[in-house]
Amino acid sequence: MPAAPGAIVGIGDDAAVLRVPDPRIVATTDLLVEGRHFRTEWSGPADIGGKAAARSLADVAAMGAVPLALLVGLAAPSDLPVAWAQDFASGLADEAARTGAHVIGGDVSQASPIMAAVTAIGTLAEEEPVTRSGARSSDVVAVAGRLGQAAAGLALLEAGRREPSGAVAAHRRPRPPYDAGPEAAALGATSMIDVSDGLLADLGHIAAASGVLIDVETARLELAAPLLAAARALRHDPLDWVLSGGEDHALAATFPRDARLPSHWAVIGRVHEGQGIRVDGANYRGQFGWQHFL
Amino acid sequence: MPAAPGAIVGIGDDAAVLRVPDPRIVATTDLLVEGRHFRTEWSGPADIGGKAAARSLADVAAMGAVPLALLVGLAAPSDLPVAWAQDFASGLADEAARTGAHVIGGDVSQASPIMAAVTAIGTLAEEEPVTRSGARSSDVVAVAGRLGQAAAGLALLEAGRREPSGAVAAHRRPRPPYDAGPEAAALGATSMIDVSDGLLADLGHIAAASGVLIDVETARLELAAPLLAAARALRHDPLDWVLSGGEDHALAATFPRDARLPSHWAVIGRVHEGQGIRVDGANYRGQFGWQHFL
Repeated sequence: MPAAPGAIVGIGDDAAVLRVPDPRIVATTDLLVEGRHFRTEWSGPADIGGKAAARSLADVAAMGAVPLALLVGLAAPSDLPVAWAQDFASGLADEAARTGAHVIGGDVSQASPIMAAVTAIGTLAEEEPVTRSGARSSDVVAVAGRLGQAAAGLALLEAGRREPSGAVAAHRRPRPPYDAGPEAAALGATSMIDVSDGLLADLGHIAAASGVLIDVETARLELAAPLLAAARALRHDPLDWVLSGGEDHALAATFPRDARLPSHWAVIGRVHEGQGIRVDGANYRGQFGWQHFL
Repeated sequence: MPAAPGAIVGIGDDAAVLRVPDPRIVATTDLLVEGRHFRTEWSGPADIGGKAAARSLADVAAMGAVPLALLVGLAAPSDLPVAWAQDFASGLADEAARTGAHVIGGDVSQASPIMAAVTAIGTLAEEEPVTRSGARSSDVVAVAGRLGQAAAGLALLEAGRREPSGAVAAHRRPRPPYDAGPEAAALGATSMIDVSDGLLADLGHIAAASGVLIDVETARLELAAPLLAAARALRHDPLDWVLSGGEDHALAATFPRDARLPSHWAVIGRVHEGQGIRVDGANYRGQFGWQHFL
């Protein structure tokens, strides 16, 4: 495979050596576990590899940074077909390529269920990192990327359906808006997070870290066509998926109210003094999103 | 916990941000899987965490680099006691502290068996990276650290014994000579590897990458007291563990023959023109070490 840009030593030695353009590096590790984050009967290996990469790459973007490199640990049963592992690696490398990043190292071991641990390393380039703790009252809340579609797709699969295909595809392969991360930093974002647990849950993390109240205005939330199709098929409220569904890896950020945002950043709410999350000015009674194990 | 030196953003955001002292970073990921790399009935959580850290930290040292930071993914069953996870994290942090590195991020998920994925990030400081491919004929081969003791300890545990305790302790908690890595780079090492698969297997990786023949002189190999005690208990040839046992994470390196090596670097062989590995001038008939899954 071609050497990664900046890779002084690539795959095959004890460790990779990478030249970074800025002394401030961004690093994150995410796990993807069979039966918990994917099922092999619902997603092919290239999609699973792509999803494993997307989770970590989106975390780097959510700091306002640009991904440079991935390291991958793959534990899998000994009877796993070699073609499965190859397609997994291809899907992972293809997703990395969407951001300009390359796979620089990894490890394999025998285990069941399949587990992938993906570390992404990125660079901040010129901006300061955008954390979860900088939101201020009077900021606007904006989102780039899909909301609720992966959750709708999962609900379809759990109901034994593979149609409508749009939401199912969104579950299989998230499409995080990676470029919107550094863009938000340049636009003056005061806080940012990637929506992995659910919009309200993740805005709750910003609200808690920043010591503010965030009010989401549901009339401003887009209900995309794949979401509405899934909602019709399952007779489910699509807004529930938008508010509580994770794994699309949209980026949610707060900006000063006078920031001029490009159209792919949709304003969906406001920051106020106080604490916690409100929906249309009232406390939300639904589920807040994914519950972590620890 | 105290912030890591150089950590601009630590645990709790989408990703960590770390300021590195040199633009050349070293990065590696290793997996540790229950039942394959450890058993909870043979090792306590602090030792397992320490071992998980040591594997990745030793890889960084083997490039001639100094570890700065660890990221940890831990997948574990939902009924795992919280104290187990806390002790695992303590053992991991303590091992990192031996090198001056800190834990800057992680992820947890639910799975069984227990699996840990540890990424280590290091810095090269002033020297060039020491790869596996620079050994030249007439170089000497030298080793720093323990050889065979972890394998002897595993053999004792597999035989149902917990004594003699020295080798068992070496299996539970490797003690890689981290400082010897950057030291070797400064001493002009032409190649280096950490002994994780077994001395002959890992020297074989150097021989293959460098296109040379390596001859190991068994009379020069130290048979440490814990090794001899285990050998007596199991009526096993201790040299077999020294040549083929991995997981002590000693460092093996090649140096120009006129290099002046400190006493903790023991010369154990020579590099010649040719290819492959010989033991005392003859082809070796025993096991070469750990076989990887893929």
